[in-house]
Amino acid sequence: MFYLLDIIGTMAFAVSGALTAMNKKLDPFGVYIIAFVTAVGGGTLRDIMIGRTPVGWMRDPNYVYLITAGFFLAIIFRKKLDHLRISLFLFDTIGLGVFTLIGLEKGINTGLHPVICIALGTMTASFGGVIRDILCNEIPVIFRREIYATICIIGGMVFFGLKKTGLEKDAIYLITSCVIIILRLMAVKFKWYLSPLEQ
Amino acid sequence: MFYLLDIIGTMAFAVSGALTAMNKKLDPFGVYIIAFVTAVGGGTLRDIMIGRTPVGWMRDPNYVYLITAGFFLAIIFRKKLDHLRISLFLFDTIGLGVFTLIGLEKGINTGLHPVICIALGTMTASFGGVIRDILCNEIPVIFRREIYATICIIGGMVFFGLKKTGLEKDAIYLITSCVIIILRLMAVKFKWYLSPLEQ
Amino acid sequence: MFYLLDIIGTMAFAVSGALTAMNKKLDPFGVYIIAFVTAVGGGTLRDIMIGRTPVGWMRDPNYVYLITAGFFLAIIFRKKLDHLRISLFLFDTIGLGVFTLIGLEKGINTGLHPVICIALGTMTASFGGVIRDILCNEIPVIFRREIYATICIIGGMVFFGLKKTGLEKDAIYLITSCVIIILRLMAVKFKWYLSPLEQ
Repeated sequence: MFYLLDIIGTMAFAVSGALTAMNKKLDPFGVYIIAFVTAVGGGTLRDIMIGRTPVGWMRDPNYVYLITAGFFLAIIFRKKLDHLRISLFLFDTIGLGVFTLIGLEKGINTGLHPVICIALGTMTASFGGVIRDILCNEIPVIFRREIYATICIIGGMVFFGLKKTGLEKDAIYLITSCVIIILRLMAVKFKWYLSPLEQ
Repeated sequence: MFYLLDIIGTMAFAVSGALTAMNKKLDPFGVYIIAFVTAVGGGTLRDIMIGRTPVGWMRDPNYVYLITAGFFLAIIFRKKLDHLRISLFLFDTIGLGVFTLIGLEKGINTGLHPVICIALGTMTASFGGVIRDILCNEIPVIFRREIYATICIIGGMVFFGLKKTGLEKDAIYLITSCVIIILRLMAVKFKWYLSPLEQ
Repeated sequence: MFYLLDIIGTMAFAVSGALTAMNKKLDPFGVYIIAFVTAVGGGTLRDIMIGRTPVGWMRDPNYVYLITAGFFLAIIFRKKLDHLRISLFLFDTIGLGVFTLIGLEKGINTGLHPVICIALGTMTASFGGVIRDILCNEIPVIFRREIYATICIIGGMVFFGLKKTGLEKDAIYLITSCVIIILRLMAVKFKWYLSPLEQ
């Protein structure tokens, strides 16, 4: 189940990365690389920083196949993806929840402090997009007017709060990912976003 | 004493990173991340390259607290920081000296060649700013008209020169950091900077 | 022989990086760093991701000396390098072949899947240029209209195809590098390049 959600999230991130790259008029190789880093860049950064090498996608070629599939899907259906915008957004939101949990778990397995685990969860879920934006020569969108990453941080706090109650693992995972997904949906629905500080 | 200077340097780098990010109109999350990478980005890059993982700030949550404090200080006092410009500059200069020494030391402990240790010292002290500028979508300022990094390189040479004389460790550390700090003050006072090569 | 080609490739990449940086009006420190990352950035990224630390150039100070030599050559002959454009292009092409092979070999030695090894070969040969472009605040040229990286991927496929035939190692290396070099020469000669997808 969890693995299936990881697959959905990875594909959704790859497709959204490919679409961004096509909008920037990159060539197919550029589109492929952007799809790749959007999908696995956050997890790669996490693995490098905690010393879990070779990094995740190098241990399991399935990630390469998944991203390649996402890349071709995005190219073939690029004119029709507007109609799928809502599905894509939902899959992307599932990715946000799953990737945050994977990052939290890896941090705990490495024996790190909860504060650091929350940083790892946030990094896993949102820094693929940061690398995507840097490669596309833009200031990362989550630094400007998104609460994407903030939701991961809140999700991480909920996770450790629940852990203290002694609830069983599966329930904690389920509740945390639901909190992240619901907050994300509400953020988009009610147009919650962070804005620059007044100066 | 050394640890105290590390704290001062980390806070100063975090505050200066936060100020840069606010000038670029980033939202609070973006300001926080820029403060973070400015403060620990150089050391993180160094740790990743020498294989010292989990990287430094992940082993001691105090860095997260320090940077968070620097972030709030910068936000609260952002309108008054102009009056503190000189203090900030002094703290930043202390950071330059301390971070260079930390990088040199980590290189020596890893058994690396002096030339590589000097590269690590320079990276520790000045590449947080490089990552900050890249995330803010600018060509890094130290690549354009600064001698910031050059001073770290000179400091590293002084360090290894003194080491050959057989002077004791504390004296070498003290002299090296004073050389770096004095060179930095003189560089700003006398407007020394590197300029592009004529073509 | 192989080591000699590595030296030629590293120097060529350093010189081409330095020239790019001088065109962007960077100061000497910036020019040096860009020469450095163009020459060893791809291999550094590969080593970090597979956990081969300290990364390659830190284990052998000769890389620093080579790059420093390339840096000074580029500065001294910057007005005359136009006449050497063809030699430089040839050396750069040799670098492309050699670096791809080094990346493939490191992947095999780490016990990784052929698909991942091809990714590592491509990364080694072409991601120094990606980091160079990001530091110079440009969208990486190989993402926009180059087939540079695509040639590395084809070279990697040829390599594993030949490996299946049971040919001896030296022959596989020679043929793979010739394929990469010839494809690169033909690509430039016949103006083959990838173009953005129609939307």
